[in-house]
Amino acid sequence: MPSATDIETDSIQWNEQGLVAAIAQDWQSGEVLMLAWMNREALQCTTAEQRAVYWSRSRGALWRKGENSGNVQRLKELRIDCDGDALLLKVEQIGGIACHTGRRHCFYRRLDGNRWVETDAVLRDPKDMYGESQGHGGNGGPQE
Amino acid sequence: MPSATDIETDSIQWNEQGLVAAIAQDWQSGEVLMLAWMNREALQCTTAEQRAVYWSRSRGALWRKGENSGNVQRLKELRIDCDGDALLLKVEQIGGIACHTGRRHCFYRRLDGNRWVETDAVLRDPKDMYGESQGHGGNGGPQE
Repeated sequence: MPSATDIETDSIQWNEQGLVAAIAQDWQSGEVLMLAWMNREALQCTTAEQRAVYWSRSRGALWRKGENSGNVQRLKELRIDCDGDALLLKVEQIGGIACHTGRRHCFYRRLDGNRWVETDAVLRDPKDMYGESQGHGGNGGPQE
Repeated sequence: MPSATDIETDSIQWNEQGLVAAIAQDWQSGEVLMLAWMNREALQCTTAEQRAVYWSRSRGALWRKGENSGNVQRLKELRIDCDGDALLLKVEQIGGIACHTGRRHCFYRRLDGNRWVETDAVLRDPKDMYGESQGHGGNGGPQE
C-alpha cells in the first residue's frame, strides 16, 4: 500500500478550489452510488486508508465516509479520467447504504416525463443512522 | 417526450457557473463512461433530443456528444442525486467509444501502487475519428 504522501498527483487537474470530482461505484453491481469531491489530502487519505475519504465543501473539512453511520466505502480500485479532473472509485459499500437519506445510492430520482420520481426505497431511517441530526458530508448537513 | 422547456429544473442545484455535473453510464454494462457538465440549456436539449448534450467549459458552448465522431450517447434514463447537484445519464454509447482518445471510456488509468497505469486499449485512432484535430468537448481541444 502506498504511503499517504507518495501517490502520483501531478496528473490531476484540481479545480480552482483545489478539488477533483470523485464518483463512487459499487465494485460488484456497477451501480453508481454517489458523486463527491476530494482535495489532495482526501485523496491521499483514501489511498493510505483504502476507504473513501472526501472533502466536505459545506463543512470545509475531511469527510471520512461512514464515520458516523458505519456505511464505510472500502476502496477496491481507483481510476482517473483522460483529462485528470475526475476520479472513479470502485468500492465495497458497507451496510449497502451510500445515501444519507438511507437509500442504497444517491441517484434515487428518475426523470419521468418532466418530473423527478423517487424510485428507490429508504432502507434505514436516517435518525437511526445518525441520531436526530440527519447526516451528510456533501453540500448540506452535518458529518455523515 | 417533454418539450425543451418544461422539464422540472427547480430541484437542480446549479453551481456558481450555472452548471451541474453529469455522469454518463452505459445503460447495459453499467460501465462509467465519463463525467461532463450541463447548463440548463444542455439539460433541456438532452431531454428534448434524447441524446447527451453537454456544456463544454473550454469552448463555452453546447457540446452535442458525438457530433463529429458519430459517438452519440442515446439517453435511456436520467437520474438526479439527493442534493440535486449531480445527474446520472444511462446511455447507449453508439460506436462503443466514449473517450476522445478512442477508448471505450475515459477512466482508462488505474492507480497501481502510486502510479496511474493505462488499462484500456485505443479502439480507434482519434485522427480517424476527428481528422487531424483531436476532438474533446470537455476541458481541452475542439469539438468532439
